[in-house]
Amino acid sequence: MIQQQSMPAHSLPATEFIKRLRAAVAYRKKEKLDALVIATEVNRYYFTGFCASNGILLITKDDPVFYTDFRYFTAAKRELPFLKVKLLWKGPAEPKAFGALGKAWKRIGFEGSLPSERLLKWKDIFASAEFVNVTEAIGTMRSIKSPAEQRVIRAAIRAGDAVFAAVRSQLVPGMTEWDVRNLIRRGADFCGQGESFEAIVCVGAHGAECHHHTDETPLRANTPVLIDMGVLKDHYCSDMTRSFCLGKASAEFKKIYKIVLEANRKAIRAIRPGKKCKEIDAVARQHITKAGYGKYFDHSLGHSLGLEIHEIPNFSTSCETILKPGMIITVEPGIYLPGRFGIRIEDVILVTRTGCEVLTQTPKELE
Amino acid sequence: MIQQQSMPAHSLPATEFIKRLRAAVAYRKKEKLDALVIATEVNRYYFTGFCASNGILLITKDDPVFYTDFRYFTAAKRELPFLKVKLLWKGPAEPKAFGALGKAWKRIGFEGSLPSERLLKWKDIFASAEFVNVTEAIGTMRSIKSPAEQRVIRAAIRAGDAVFAAVRSQLVPGMTEWDVRNLIRRGADFCGQGESFEAIVCVGAHGAECHHHTDETPLRANTPVLIDMGVLKDHYCSDMTRSFCLGKASAEFKKIYKIVLEANRKAIRAIRPGKKCKEIDAVARQHITKAGYGKYFDHSLGHSLGLEIHEIPNFSTSCETILKPGMIITVEPGIYLPGRFGIRIEDVILVTRTGCEVLTQTPKELE
Repeated sequence: MIQQQSMPAHSLPATEFIKRLRAAVAYRKKEKLDALVIATEVNRYYFTGFCASNGILLITKDDPVFYTDFRYFTAAKRELPFLKVKLLWKGPAEPKAFGALGKAWKRIGFEGSLPSERLLKWKDIFASAEFVNVTEAIGTMRSIKSPAEQRVIRAAIRAGDAVFAAVRSQLVPGMTEWDVRNLIRRGADFCGQGESFEAIVCVGAHGAECHHHTDETPLRANTPVLIDMGVLKDHYCSDMTRSFCLGKASAEFKKIYKIVLEANRKAIRAIRPGKKCKEIDAVARQHITKAGYGKYFDHSLGHSLGLEIHEIPNFSTSCETILKPGMIITVEPGIYLPGRFGIRIEDVILVTRTGCEVLTQTPKELE
Repeated sequence: MIQQQSMPAHSLPATEFIKRLRAAVAYRKKEKLDALVIATEVNRYYFTGFCASNGILLITKDDPVFYTDFRYFTAAKRELPFLKVKLLWKGPAEPKAFGALGKAWKRIGFEGSLPSERLLKWKDIFASAEFVNVTEAIGTMRSIKSPAEQRVIRAAIRAGDAVFAAVRSQLVPGMTEWDVRNLIRRGADFCGQGESFEAIVCVGAHGAECHHHTDETPLRANTPVLIDMGVLKDHYCSDMTRSFCLGKASAEFKKIYKIVLEANRKAIRAIRPGKKCKEIDAVARQHITKAGYGKYFDHSLGHSLGLEIHEIPNFSTSCETILKPGMIITVEPGIYLPGRFGIRIEDVILVTRTGCEVLTQTPKELE
């Protein structure tokens, strides 16, 4: 009929979500919360496997309940046999309906990513309750990827590698940044369920702007290119950056490239369980600083990824989190020379029991 | 070289953003705010025309200042000649840096859509200040679309009509919902800068689930289809829904279709400046209720759109907002028969000085 692109996103098996729900139930108990209220889309999905733009997963001393509105109710009942599903109150009815549920609540866990006006309304409804921000706790649960999650993220990264290779082989002078962005988008649709973020494509000095907005600047011979892209596969993200020249690289480009690549490799070699995140950032930062380019590397070395493109922990100068097996984090040192060019080399690594595995397969030697 | 898809999103002329900034400056003064802090991506864009995932537009009694981080700083300085641009403090430095700016602030305007943990941090920094939620005020400014915005939204809607027509003409039994979703995605990439939201494609009973997740169910002859889709064009959204049958429609489908279409048309005829939003919702709701299907229409009649797919005001049972020329709102009554099918007919209208103009051009008569 028509050419099939990828497949609709598949969820992990129900057992995975049941395990996560149990972890949430245990967390509520441990933290002595009367209610743990999960109301953001990504965390609702994380704990249930059900996608909906509206709803609340409510965890109390009773069985967890998934509330969602009319639009999702039938599907939620069908897809969540392991959860009680109830119809969510409508917005204006919230004070009465939600308030009635929580008459006795004294300690309520909320997500820090919740819009502030919603939290302020809840604080009115439960005026005498204490509110506990659970974002970091949930982020910590999400930071350890299960074997099933690791498989899906590997698949997303393989898709990213495949898209990059196909796009890279088609690049010639005259194509614009926008043309390249379009190729990446189509590739991400074909190999996954689209992009995990809008691709960044930079020609020449645009690369020094780090998060440049793709425009119609043409690729030129012997000029640096920076591509930062990712694919979404079964709800999970990949992320990678490569920098290269179409044609011959200048001596300066080669010199900077070498420094960034060494920083990337040194950081990767330093990763192992028990180390602090900031120690890994420091390895790359010291290398770049010693080479004299410290002030041109003004972002963190890396971020975790999973259901979202930016998760915790981070390889940043201030992150005290201790690395554990199952964490999946980017390593992406960069040097940005304003008005000239920028170089960033980004891989995704999985922390293992003895060190780490680099999941990104795209070569990083300069051709 | 390669086939050009659409173009990168273009911003409106700088004069447009200067006008919006002036409105924000006037609002701050009128509300006696010492500081109006704009920190969400969409509102930063609305007031400046600059896209960045991080930054603060700070409006005080002094000149407005746009703070953004290292990644966007160079581009912001180049693209915002009408604004002071400064380097944003880093996260951990916020209490000190932000606090120093606002030593004398007693009344601070914040966005209700801001993540709650950020607001809570600011409440710590400015412990004695009063915080005023400005979301509704900004939403009200954004609800009146300027002539330039109207032109862009018209273009987005034309793109949506074109994509729908091309997709509709290709539908045959055997294609899956996912195939149709892929056609829509490609069309939205070709005619705009992608989709304004992930298209909803429903075969048969899936249409009764209202926000069904596209899967691999095949289209069948003489079976209802519901498509809800939108295109993003130069940062603005379109949105439309059509319901139809591939082949012959059943007598029941035709009967329900007629009721929904009449509700759509009656509501549109009722729209004019000075009416309350909830009166328009009531027109459609009464029509459907009188026909005996009131309980199968359990969502609002419509929502405003613009930079976001859901803006205020809404055609809902509780929205007291008075219609004004320049508002752009959807009219989308629906009837959903569980296990059978669902019908929704969605147009976008522009409130004019004397009534309204239906911007959506796709025919809505059942073939």
